[in-house]
Amino acid sequence: MKALVYHGAGKKSWEEKPKPILLEPTDAVVKILKTTICGTDLHIMKGDLPEVVDGRIIGHEGVGIIDEVGSAVTNFKKGDHVIISCVTSCGKCDYCKRAMYSHCEKGGWILGYKIDGTQAEYVRIPYADNSLYPIPEGADEEALVMLSDILPTGFECGVLNGKVKPGDTIAIVGAGPVGMAALLTAQFYTPAEIIVIDLDDNRLAVAKTFGATHTINSTDGKAVEKVMALTNNKGVDVAIEAVGMKPTFEMCEEIVNPGGHIANIGVHGKSVTLHLETLWSKNITITTRLVDTVTTPMLFKTVLSKKIEPKKLITHRFKLDQIMEAYETFRNAAKEKALKVILTN
Amino acid sequence: MKALVYHGAGKKSWEEKPKPILLEPTDAVVKILKTTICGTDLHIMKGDLPEVVDGRIIGHEGVGIIDEVGSAVTNFKKGDHVIISCVTSCGKCDYCKRAMYSHCEKGGWILGYKIDGTQAEYVRIPYADNSLYPIPEGADEEALVMLSDILPTGFECGVLNGKVKPGDTIAIVGAGPVGMAALLTAQFYTPAEIIVIDLDDNRLAVAKTFGATHTINSTDGKAVEKVMALTNNKGVDVAIEAVGMKPTFEMCEEIVNPGGHIANIGVHGKSVTLHLETLWSKNITITTRLVDTVTTPMLFKTVLSKKIEPKKLITHRFKLDQIMEAYETFRNAAKEKALKVILTN
Amino acid sequence: MKALVYHGAGKKSWEEKPKPILLEPTDAVVKILKTTICGTDLHIMKGDLPEVVDGRIIGHEGVGIIDEVGSAVTNFKKGDHVIISCVTSCGKCDYCKRAMYSHCEKGGWILGYKIDGTQAEYVRIPYADNSLYPIPEGADEEALVMLSDILPTGFECGVLNGKVKPGDTIAIVGAGPVGMAALLTAQFYTPAEIIVIDLDDNRLAVAKTFGATHTINSTDGKAVEKVMALTNNKGVDVAIEAVGMKPTFEMCEEIVNPGGHIANIGVHGKSVTLHLETLWSKNITITTRLVDTVTTPMLFKTVLSKKIEPKKLITHRFKLDQIMEAYETFRNAAKEKALKVILTN
Amino acid sequence: MKALVYHGAGKKSWEEKPKPILLEPTDAVVKILKTTICGTDLHIMKGDLPEVVDGRIIGHEGVGIIDEVGSAVTNFKKGDHVIISCVTSCGKCDYCKRAMYSHCEKGGWILGYKIDGTQAEYVRIPYADNSLYPIPEGADEEALVMLSDILPTGFECGVLNGKVKPGDTIAIVGAGPVGMAALLTAQFYTPAEIIVIDLDDNRLAVAKTFGATHTINSTDGKAVEKVMALTNNKGVDVAIEAVGMKPTFEMCEEIVNPGGHIANIGVHGKSVTLHLETLWSKNITITTRLVDTVTTPMLFKTVLSKKIEPKKLITHRFKLDQIMEAYETFRNAAKEKALKVILTN
Repeated sequence: MKALVYHGAGKKSWEEKPKPILLEPTDAVVKILKTTICGTDLHIMKGDLPEVVDGRIIGHEGVGIIDEVGSAVTNFKKGDHVIISCVTSCGKCDYCKRAMYSHCEKGGWILGYKIDGTQAEYVRIPYADNSLYPIPEGADEEALVMLSDILPTGFECGVLNGKVKPGDTIAIVGAGPVGMAALLTAQFYTPAEIIVIDLDDNRLAVAKTFGATHTINSTDGKAVEKVMALTNNKGVDVAIEAVGMKPTFEMCEEIVNPGGHIANIGVHGKSVTLHLETLWSKNITITTRLVDTVTTPMLFKTVLSKKIEPKKLITHRFKLDQIMEAYETFRNAAKEKALKVILTN
Repeated sequence: MKALVYHGAGKKSWEEKPKPILLEPTDAVVKILKTTICGTDLHIMKGDLPEVVDGRIIGHEGVGIIDEVGSAVTNFKKGDHVIISCVTSCGKCDYCKRAMYSHCEKGGWILGYKIDGTQAEYVRIPYADNSLYPIPEGADEEALVMLSDILPTGFECGVLNGKVKPGDTIAIVGAGPVGMAALLTAQFYTPAEIIVIDLDDNRLAVAKTFGATHTINSTDGKAVEKVMALTNNKGVDVAIEAVGMKPTFEMCEEIVNPGGHIANIGVHGKSVTLHLETLWSKNITITTRLVDTVTTPMLFKTVLSKKIEPKKLITHRFKLDQIMEAYETFRNAAKEKALKVILTN
Repeated sequence: MKALVYHGAGKKSWEEKPKPILLEPTDAVVKILKTTICGTDLHIMKGDLPEVVDGRIIGHEGVGIIDEVGSAVTNFKKGDHVIISCVTSCGKCDYCKRAMYSHCEKGGWILGYKIDGTQAEYVRIPYADNSLYPIPEGADEEALVMLSDILPTGFECGVLNGKVKPGDTIAIVGAGPVGMAALLTAQFYTPAEIIVIDLDDNRLAVAKTFGATHTINSTDGKAVEKVMALTNNKGVDVAIEAVGMKPTFEMCEEIVNPGGHIANIGVHGKSVTLHLETLWSKNITITTRLVDTVTTPMLFKTVLSKKIEPKKLITHRFKLDQIMEAYETFRNAAKEKALKVILTN
Repeated sequence: MKALVYHGAGKKSWEEKPKPILLEPTDAVVKILKTTICGTDLHIMKGDLPEVVDGRIIGHEGVGIIDEVGSAVTNFKKGDHVIISCVTSCGKCDYCKRAMYSHCEKGGWILGYKIDGTQAEYVRIPYADNSLYPIPEGADEEALVMLSDILPTGFECGVLNGKVKPGDTIAIVGAGPVGMAALLTAQFYTPAEIIVIDLDDNRLAVAKTFGATHTINSTDGKAVEKVMALTNNKGVDVAIEAVGMKPTFEMCEEIVNPGGHIANIGVHGKSVTLHLETLWSKNITITTRLVDTVTTPMLFKTVLSKKIEPKKLITHRFKLDQIMEAYETFRNAAKEKALKVILTN
């Protein structure tokens, strides 16, 4: 089969690889129908995650058809359409029992990272019963690719951890795909005001069409002042960090109000400064989280009932064998006005 | 009347001051029966809180007898014995309605800080109905002084915010009075293991008698290793910071396990480093809080029913007019083996 | 002034009464701008609440202008526009501190019940600081009348107690004004399916326009079967009872799924049968609640930000002195297709 | 092997049966070390659960040694000591993912009910990885038999569902084994007062030694009055029903205070009367639950750290082949002063 293979920092190719086979009775092999590229994949390609070995097939999102199942798989059979979760869950370790699949002792995020991933014609999925979700006939599979990673990430790490409530004033710092996913899913809880902050006017314009009530271009370094002005100097109830940088996290520290929440989604490569000299008495809560994908069934219901349209996040479409081109588009996301690119096999 | 008065950094005296009078219909004047000295009072005396003016009567803890009430006070009458809460609550601003008395728009922590306090023969208490608690006849009033500040501080900021659960492994960093209050109240939730960390062997020995299952003297810089060894390298479910320094907070970052909580109680004068480069994916929660004293009624019931013995925290007793001596004892707490000193009028 | 006065079962009149005066320093007198009639008022008029005395002015909803305030009132001054909450809260008893204003030791629901109410030109409001809410300039005051009682009732007793979540399937049994308020506010949490059940086709048609995804006319006695058919025989996650009768409550028992919630809003005059022989093992939760109006500030923000349009509930408008006619209309709600009637002074 | 076999209402025998074998790759066969008899087993023996077929081996509690595991079992190997949970959990259906193992689509309570159980020398355990818990070397296995069913039942259905909090006043109605388990585990949350109500003076005396602060013999029909007298006429914060009868449940309705919880543990054969005519406005919560055993790991930690001594519940000990005699003792529990009987293989 063909697959997108990492060959060290800066090197990748669309090349022939052996079709995966079942290794454990709990495995399934899935034929990919649609997949996508994640910001994390770009980091891998740059060599930022040195634990990814030369020869690894990349990708942790997608929908597909079950090609084969191991003897212990009971929830699925050949021919079933499935969503592939970016997080693999064994369903039987302490973490899985506590709904922290991200820290599954045998799984977690391994797909396209520690084992071969979904940017390929076929993929082996360990613990298939707990790591795949059935797609009912007639569902829009493009939309459901967003359930592999980006929607649960924005929702769990940003919205749920931030405890967004009806009537809240919230800020989302970063209007990339994951910030947009937080923006879409925050509206499940009907906040009164949603302020989106980014450096890119195009993304801010898109954020407005996705439900932002206010947008701030932070290029001028005055985002904090502007948030305070918008909130009668009170700050926001929830600040969602969707960038992963020191200045954006520290902006959240400045705009959160007493009793408020800072929900970190960003993947941080460096430490930040926590201003406890002012925050110690502000009754705030800061959370971090690697997506657990425990809300996939809940999100699934909101998509099927059309309470959310994750397809809005898709800006570009390619054939799977055009993936090298798709990477170029996604790598130049700002210039290309790209959020999510869909690859169809 | 006599009162302990602040006269600028390093200067205080036990001197004659006018007896306070009612200023608002919601005020009460309380005759002090017992009061105590808080670590914060030492900070004031050093000049660390420049907003405290020359001439201010210090102190925010105590029990007393109602001497006089304003026309709008309905919960109390002359002669009632009361606990004085360190936090003043108007009961009618947005924050009070949300049970965040610490941020009350007209109150919060003002006693012995922005208005005259309790280290005196009499004190004026604003919003008496919401800021005092009735003491039933026969209750042990010495024990109840601990409900003014230290018990709710340890409980709300440390135990409740840390979400201590039955079976948990928790660490308390800092075995001063507030760490000890967290130690006592954490046991309301029956954690399996309580590790207390401090630099002072005497305090650690006391912590053992208060319910610590393990103690670690961190003088050798190996506390993190020792916690990891005690927890099979898993870390703790809850890390309670009860010091207010950069190294102790950062120790909490190192010992908290995935899914765990860091509950800050410490008053920090400087920022700390938040290691998001490792914590971003650990599903942790960090909280800060200025005590709200919303749990005073709950704590009251646990004291009256003898589920907790806050009197254990009292190490020294003085007459109120010996307060200068009491300050000396408390200032040399380690040497004097002091936790809380009680002053009786 | 003129007022609507109860004179025993079946007897009421619009008559001259003395303008109310301040009795306590915490009182305010409010000039009524708009008021409405509640289903409970009809019960009073029928004599179902014998504790209501002859001569009582009825009504517990409305918006108005502050005419006069007592010496201890600090949140309001003459001329302020305010929402009158149906529940009076002293802000300083145990229940108020626990956010259970409905059980306030000196307040609770007393307006137009134990003290004179809002269907008059003026009304005295005890504990004004805690029982009134300020209206900002330019707000739509008709819409805000719905915040006195009906919206918080539907929201707190039905939606919050029922713990409606994104993706849920919920049923609302009863499409009268309070059921409709539950329908509108349930959508704050984005349930996937909302099934509304009633005997009246007109109300069901209105429910559809308010966001019901399915409606069932239960006249044929087959509502349970129909709900089970709509839910793949699983039942609903949340069943909200908004009628107050034995058959409707017992319908909720039949349609709730394992792990689900029954949230009672209805005012029941008689006991019901609880089928513990089947429910004991179904992991369900049943709640009851008299509205606390603690969510008024939250609801206020959703109205001001246009996340909800409570005005939709208003079907008829009268002058205040046409109140006898308004009662007739409301008493024949089904025939008149009435939900809420607004009376303007 | 030998096993206790049900042969229709009133008929059982200790007889030879084939040793169980693995049927699925997720199965384990466990050699029983210790087992016990549950009140439910007595119901089965009386014929109250007609779905139990002639020939069924009874019993759903016990500890044992792994004798054999299927190819998909990864958490256990031959020779491991394990606790057998009364509830079988597949770990991969919707209910298991929501931590409602009681409603597992392929499991739930099936042991000694729909499949052969633990009152035998060997037992087959489906979904072994999710339905067994490892016992560390040196642990007291007698104590751990209480984790199969009775401790999680009292804790989850009574204490957790009842939301027992520090300082609460709670009542436990019924001092049989499960009421006693609620009594022991309620103390994890440090209630101020625990009132235990039963008809049997011996059990009440035992309850006192287990931590009850007050006991009431309800034989005289005056239990409600006595509870109200003990609580200043306020009623209790939490009423735990541990009997399963109409009068005991209705007693809970009478003694619960506004804002309080009724947590049903009892297995009810008949409906009860729910007095909504008084309860509709009392802001109460009623819960039902079939034990999920999701708290087994938490309870395990409290047992290993000696925060609870479940062994106290054991009153009688037999060899496994004396099981017919053990049934007689347990059937006459009041006369024999029996709580739990332990059978050792």
